[in-house]
Amino acid sequence: MFINRRSALASTLILTLLLCFSSSATAGAQSAALFQYGVIDALLAGGYDGSLPLSQLRTHGDLGLGTFDALDGEMVLLDGVVYQVPASGQVKRPAPGMTTPFAQVVRFHPTLSQSLAAGADIKAVEATLDTRLGDTQRFAAIRLDATFTALTARSVPKQTPPYRPLAEVAKEQTVFDFHTVRGTLVAMRGPTFVKGLGVPGWHWHFISQDRKRGGHVLSFTLADGAQAKLMPLRRMDLLLPTSGFSGLDLLRDRASELKAVESAR
Amino acid sequence: MFINRRSALASTLILTLLLCFSSSATAGAQSAALFQYGVIDALLAGGYDGSLPLSQLRTHGDLGLGTFDALDGEMVLLDGVVYQVPASGQVKRPAPGMTTPFAQVVRFHPTLSQSLAAGADIKAVEATLDTRLGDTQRFAAIRLDATFTALTARSVPKQTPPYRPLAEVAKEQTVFDFHTVRGTLVAMRGPTFVKGLGVPGWHWHFISQDRKRGGHVLSFTLADGAQAKLMPLRRMDLLLPTSGFSGLDLLRDRASELKAVESAR
Repeated sequence: MFINRRSALASTLILTLLLCFSSSATAGAQSAALFQYGVIDALLAGGYDGSLPLSQLRTHGDLGLGTFDALDGEMVLLDGVVYQVPASGQVKRPAPGMTTPFAQVVRFHPTLSQSLAAGADIKAVEATLDTRLGDTQRFAAIRLDATFTALTARSVPKQTPPYRPLAEVAKEQTVFDFHTVRGTLVAMRGPTFVKGLGVPGWHWHFISQDRKRGGHVLSFTLADGAQAKLMPLRRMDLLLPTSGFSGLDLLRDRASELKAVESAR
Repeated sequence: MFINRRSALASTLILTLLLCFSSSATAGAQSAALFQYGVIDALLAGGYDGSLPLSQLRTHGDLGLGTFDALDGEMVLLDGVVYQVPASGQVKRPAPGMTTPFAQVVRFHPTLSQSLAAGADIKAVEATLDTRLGDTQRFAAIRLDATFTALTARSVPKQTPPYRPLAEVAKEQTVFDFHTVRGTLVAMRGPTFVKGLGVPGWHWHFISQDRKRGGHVLSFTLADGAQAKLMPLRRMDLLLPTSGFSGLDLLRDRASELKAVESAR
């Protein structure tokens, strides 16, 4: 009798485990997602108040980019570590309680790689990677460890309310010119139809190998051949702030402002 | 001894169940998401080939709307059942293997309700629900069971390749004028910044109480007071087709085309 009960318990345990794991497997079988917190049009409109703690952001990925509460610098997430590049250019490791108003991260499992030639600049690299991706109407996360003959990056100064639009603030950016620097580029690529919500096209952030310098990348030239690792993504997981976007003008088209903010020197 | 073993097994079972449920709870603790398959600009450009089977779509929600492979009618997902309203107006229950190029669904757990007055029309209802939602820069799913003195819906004819843009096809829509009809409205509301990707503002589909008629809603007037159930959502889970959007023009701004397609009689 007790053997039957034990068998019944054992069977129930096995069944429970099977159900539990099959449920996890179903979730896991879904495509990997680019996790995005916040909306680019809100950031362009001056929505700099952070609301997602970095400790929570990190549960969504180990590679990515973004900014910080009060627009206090450029974010690089690499190997699960968040680096902050403030306008001073001196990289910091922000506290886990620090928050972000906008970030894009991914659990990085690259499925493609691409050789890049020495001397290639940002435009050449983007074109080569576009060809490798084939379908550019998807999302992609890219990691590129390389040495650069030249790399130009920028950061933005921490803001105080009332916040001005990003296109104005970005004019006060600090530009860093690096020569013969080794480090890692983290890039996200968005399809054209994410306009308003995300960043169409390429968006590059940099952190040096010694993790002391970095920023939002304006240009670079590869010193040697390098190997880019690419992760195309069919899925985006968008989370909006609890606090909402009250007081921000989200009606105007900010495509040209975004272009200026992303690429102007 | 066997009692100890039974106890051990029972404890293991309980622990397993706890772990299993706490793991589900962690997933559940994340905000509920509006699941969207496909991209509205691709649909507007004539991307009518379905690629997600309804059997898979239903795993993402029990309430929603969308269309079908080859633009073969309007979709209403209600209480986990997919209804197809083809241009004939005769509602069908499509096979689980039928596919969709575009749909928005949610696991509907409304957290707000709103009384609506007899005689209110679509504009008045939208304004009342906007006020109830407060923050209209989020997503929302709405269910409204009511009797209507009048309701106008439409459906679109099944297409054959090469597909024409939706703005052209929608001119050939079939319009259904219902009078004193009882049924359910399913609506999704998108924030302004989803332009290009989703549907900003309100989007209503209808299915009659006898599940025989329905369509994409152009106008309605409530016969009696009714209670709308609302589910505001901070999160969107976007999945792009494996097949991509090759051959589709996703560069042009289709905001005015979308407006015409959604609301023109």
